[in-house]
Amino acid sequence: MTTALRSFASDNTAGVHPEVLAAIQAANAGDAPAYGDDPWTGRAVARFRAELGERTEVCFVFNGTGANVVGLQTALRPWQAVICADTAHINVDECGAPERLTGAKLLAVRTADGKLRPADVEGQLRGIGVEHHVQPRVVSITQATEYGTVYTVDEVRALADVAHRHGLVLHMDGARIANAAASLDVPLRALTADAGVDVLSFGGTKNGVLVGEAVVVFDPALARDLRFIRKQGMQLASKMRFVAAQYDALLADGLWRRSAAHANRLARRLADGVRDVPGVAITQPVEANAVFATLPPAQIAALQARFHFYVWDERRSEVRWMTHFATTEADVDGFVRAVRETAMEPRPAAGIAG
Amino acid sequence: MTTALRSFASDNTAGVHPEVLAAIQAANAGDAPAYGDDPWTGRAVARFRAELGERTEVCFVFNGTGANVVGLQTALRPWQAVICADTAHINVDECGAPERLTGAKLLAVRTADGKLRPADVEGQLRGIGVEHHVQPRVVSITQATEYGTVYTVDEVRALADVAHRHGLVLHMDGARIANAAASLDVPLRALTADAGVDVLSFGGTKNGVLVGEAVVVFDPALARDLRFIRKQGMQLASKMRFVAAQYDALLADGLWRRSAAHANRLARRLADGVRDVPGVAITQPVEANAVFATLPPAQIAALQARFHFYVWDERRSEVRWMTHFATTEADVDGFVRAVRETAMEPRPAAGIAG
Amino acid sequence: MTTALRSFASDNTAGVHPEVLAAIQAANAGDAPAYGDDPWTGRAVARFRAELGERTEVCFVFNGTGANVVGLQTALRPWQAVICADTAHINVDECGAPERLTGAKLLAVRTADGKLRPADVEGQLRGIGVEHHVQPRVVSITQATEYGTVYTVDEVRALADVAHRHGLVLHMDGARIANAAASLDVPLRALTADAGVDVLSFGGTKNGVLVGEAVVVFDPALARDLRFIRKQGMQLASKMRFVAAQYDALLADGLWRRSAAHANRLARRLADGVRDVPGVAITQPVEANAVFATLPPAQIAALQARFHFYVWDERRSEVRWMTHFATTEADVDGFVRAVRETAMEPRPAAGIAG
Amino acid sequence: MTTALRSFASDNTAGVHPEVLAAIQAANAGDAPAYGDDPWTGRAVARFRAELGERTEVCFVFNGTGANVVGLQTALRPWQAVICADTAHINVDECGAPERLTGAKLLAVRTADGKLRPADVEGQLRGIGVEHHVQPRVVSITQATEYGTVYTVDEVRALADVAHRHGLVLHMDGARIANAAASLDVPLRALTADAGVDVLSFGGTKNGVLVGEAVVVFDPALARDLRFIRKQGMQLASKMRFVAAQYDALLADGLWRRSAAHANRLARRLADGVRDVPGVAITQPVEANAVFATLPPAQIAALQARFHFYVWDERRSEVRWMTHFATTEADVDGFVRAVRETAMEPRPAAGIAG
Repeated sequence: MTTALRSFASDNTAGVHPEVLAAIQAANAGDAPAYGDDPWTGRAVARFRAELGERTEVCFVFNGTGANVVGLQTALRPWQAVICADTAHINVDECGAPERLTGAKLLAVRTADGKLRPADVEGQLRGIGVEHHVQPRVVSITQATEYGTVYTVDEVRALADVAHRHGLVLHMDGARIANAAASLDVPLRALTADAGVDVLSFGGTKNGVLVGEAVVVFDPALARDLRFIRKQGMQLASKMRFVAAQYDALLADGLWRRSAAHANRLARRLADGVRDVPGVAITQPVEANAVFATLPPAQIAALQARFHFYVWDERRSEVRWMTHFATTEADVDGFVRAVRETAMEPRPAAGIAG
Repeated sequence: MTTALRSFASDNTAGVHPEVLAAIQAANAGDAPAYGDDPWTGRAVARFRAELGERTEVCFVFNGTGANVVGLQTALRPWQAVICADTAHINVDECGAPERLTGAKLLAVRTADGKLRPADVEGQLRGIGVEHHVQPRVVSITQATEYGTVYTVDEVRALADVAHRHGLVLHMDGARIANAAASLDVPLRALTADAGVDVLSFGGTKNGVLVGEAVVVFDPALARDLRFIRKQGMQLASKMRFVAAQYDALLADGLWRRSAAHANRLARRLADGVRDVPGVAITQPVEANAVFATLPPAQIAALQARFHFYVWDERRSEVRWMTHFATTEADVDGFVRAVRETAMEPRPAAGIAG
Repeated sequence: MTTALRSFASDNTAGVHPEVLAAIQAANAGDAPAYGDDPWTGRAVARFRAELGERTEVCFVFNGTGANVVGLQTALRPWQAVICADTAHINVDECGAPERLTGAKLLAVRTADGKLRPADVEGQLRGIGVEHHVQPRVVSITQATEYGTVYTVDEVRALADVAHRHGLVLHMDGARIANAAASLDVPLRALTADAGVDVLSFGGTKNGVLVGEAVVVFDPALARDLRFIRKQGMQLASKMRFVAAQYDALLADGLWRRSAAHANRLARRLADGVRDVPGVAITQPVEANAVFATLPPAQIAALQARFHFYVWDERRSEVRWMTHFATTEADVDGFVRAVRETAMEPRPAAGIAG
Repeated sequence: MTTALRSFASDNTAGVHPEVLAAIQAANAGDAPAYGDDPWTGRAVARFRAELGERTEVCFVFNGTGANVVGLQTALRPWQAVICADTAHINVDECGAPERLTGAKLLAVRTADGKLRPADVEGQLRGIGVEHHVQPRVVSITQATEYGTVYTVDEVRALADVAHRHGLVLHMDGARIANAAASLDVPLRALTADAGVDVLSFGGTKNGVLVGEAVVVFDPALARDLRFIRKQGMQLASKMRFVAAQYDALLADGLWRRSAAHANRLARRLADGVRDVPGVAITQPVEANAVFATLPPAQIAALQARFHFYVWDERRSEVRWMTHFATTEADVDGFVRAVRETAMEPRPAAGIAG
């Protein structure tokens, strides 16, 4: 595998945004207290609070799995459970870390588009108070979802309402929260704190950061043990300033939104470019920076010889194409051309011979 | 707490070595496969193998706790135990992560200087085969120790021998392995693989790296599940190339050794500068980059007003002063002057009035 | 809730079989070594080996959850997974203990009758070797199932074959293994060791035992750490002889089979008695000691006023009726009468007035 | 190992007290709801409340390790710690179950007699609020201790005070609470609830019960999740009535105290009988039902040929002799005679040759 292939594999094949890297360099100025007692961390937390509310608690962790697990653990005891979509990253892509680290169980619900509905939550509220059964405690949603779809503010609010009505907590895996907010063109706060989210994994890695994600807790009761959970969860960086400085840059003047909007726009461009190609079918609404499509296996193979991307569901011959902050229009246009070139000739109808 | 204070608090108050930061910048070149399937990771692993042996398995993790826990987990089942010094980082500074994540118990032995001896190991080999008792499986040593002392090659070998004789594994927490190897002036391999170490946490953070440590496994049987342990342990970086590139730089032409030797030299300079100050007593051999000393509480307070460092043991009025790759001779000399200036006036002998 | 209601709630509402209780009394003879080093345990293990094969390892635990978790733990590491039916006791009735104690994930498959098929197993063999995904390691089946259905010997063998072909282990939750063996009229060994089962939870509680189940391991490699897993899993009885003596009695002269055959026969009698009642539909094959049926909610309520039993699925108005070794023909006949008496009058067809 | 040897090995080599066994038989009367919703459990809980206070929460578990772990888990989060004596059963005899199941760390303190003092607790209150260190949350004491010594009511109260002053919980491992209360001749309540104990493992097995211990929670806040902790901890008996009936018998008319007082008296008789034997030294106060003594290795071997007991500390040639409810005066007198017969001839003073 080489870097010579243009990659539509994931938004984490991208490098670091130049402004983020510049912030790292600027933070490399002499000694600074370790573990977050430094000015850069103070500034980054202040930016989060300006964006999301002054009572917000923020702590930086290393990666998305770390953010999800630390965030979930603020709310969970081992005999409890998390209701999520069966496509959720926590359910399929974290090698069981959420169960292993929290002790709790995931109650995974099948969905068409990666989005939970209130009825999905209610359908899992069984055996409440009965010791033989795990007790639902968290509803976890991914925003934007693993299918590149986006919950509207009202949809998030409806899930928060059903969760809170039953004493549950709403967790949002925001590995692509920037893409969602850019897609909806709403402030981050409208989509999170103000929509009833209690705990948020705020993702930066897929949006131009080198390393580090943030756990954001809106409910102060859940924040009490946050620092211990992070430390014991092996997510405490000693040279914290270098993680914080990146978020300072990301949040400074809307860099996060510009990058996400760019990626979203190019995903739409890609989808629009291939939508009418015979044999290609877009399978999910393109609302963030992912395009899901089915196309013939032979065409997939031909494309993978020139571009790096993943087959999502082999049985359906479905692929995922992702864009990111550094994807260019030329990249997309080149890819679209390749899709067109590799498209199957329309098969002549049987019996229509020349 | 501000950065204006010169810091002798820890080697992780340092920033990033300029050569390491340059390597990060150089790695920021377009798209690259995530999770380690990139050329930088390949090169860094190759450098580790050149240094430590071709059969070495290497995987990068985020921090020292992560490295220790992942490394220990390669060998441990939950009913087993780790024999270590009671001052070991895994025992006192990782918020219980080793027990929590491996399920195993630490059998902590009191030592004078942070170093385990073979008799300490043998003293813990009780109840073997008896199901009521945890079963010793790992001997874990820190090199250089938390007291700044260093195991000689022969001492490591003796511990490896006693461990292996009883079917145990030797784990080395090498958060400061560079300082130890520089102190002894031996190759890394002589101090690790060739001395019988089975699993090594190879530390770079305290030696100029921004983020990331390495788990190095010398026994192939222990390496089998390494990737799953790392992933489930939330230690898998998506943009791995930026961790790997730093180690590529660190190992390239002995940068690790130059930096460590520098830090060690300045610690000796500091110790030599204060050794004869009345009321100050150096309490541990200065073999790496740490100086432990007892001095009067009032003097500690006076020094802490100007310099950042930690009281190690309040009851003994013992402090720890650390140096690192970026500490300068001028820093040390200024600190030594301050120790001398704040020293207690020698109390006049009783009855000798002026 | 009182004992005056005749119970069709569960086979664990029964008391202790008189022969089993007599064995407990007989074992109360002076001092005996604790933790299983006693003659009763020796005899009981010998009986298991005579029944299941001489290489069988047996250890007694306290309850069914304990048996399943200890058994699963012999094979599982935390990044692995168990494929099971979504109705499996380990999935829905053990409050998350399997995940919590093994760290592993359950991959639950929807089935019509509680029975896994080889294709269900194969459908879960995804992402093998990929560190982002848990790795299937165990196939777990319940025999008889939670729906009262029974795997034939050939069906077990087919699952063992697919499991072994992919390097997986076959675990059988035999909480009602006696009912299954009686139903099929085969020796226990034919249904377990000889059919390819690797680890078995052998249940006695639902078959007349006071307390205690057995973990039976057929693969010696899996038995190595069994005693430590049991002890750390809080499943080691100090006065072991009283658990063992019960199994000695149960296995002595086929008591287990007589009791199970009786319970099975009465379940069929119950099903046969109500099968033609208007509004009542038997929903699962009655192959062991459970009858599943749908009937009108009002009739359920009327019956629950006189008998103790559970609604299985409120949405479907489905109930479960169970029999056990002490259920009598009179109990069943009385219940059948009550079902008939409470049955809805057949609604006259519209327009046919008298 | 045979039962022909008279056993001074442990109080769990005893059988079941006849009154307890009779209660089990009496409970074997038809069907009863499982899992504790039965009249026997109701009665047993009522007896506990009469004895210990009406707000007491009680739940039955299977064994001592289960009781300790469930009790500790009511108070502990994984980043917290338990302060205990290094001889505590939870520290050395439970195969690491407390750490494994709670995730927390044990901070073990060396003591002379198995009893913690307030200063031992205060000495462990370090690093409070600092995320690098586990946070002390529970003080756990064993009553009577593993050395057969007994905390007075005032000593328990003093530990409760220091614990509560620092926001910690006092846990008592009362595997031999009956022996302690009998020794001090105080009500159970005076020694537990009224002395400030928050969570108690109430032991019956060593006092004549067949199987089952009780977790008793005095602080209602800690009792909230008790049933879930028990179930997930694999400690929920389905045929609960048979556990409960035993405790009903034990608490009914002071059976627990009569049995414990008997055992204590025989331990004193044993100690008094051997105290003046040359070469034998009693090493701990004999306050409950254990006698610790040093004697020559050859004599130990000679005694072990005729009696079953354990060497406690091989290096010190120290043994433990235990008595129980069924030990007889004749047993003790026979043992004392054997100690006298096997005693070393007094060595003639040097130089006094015949």
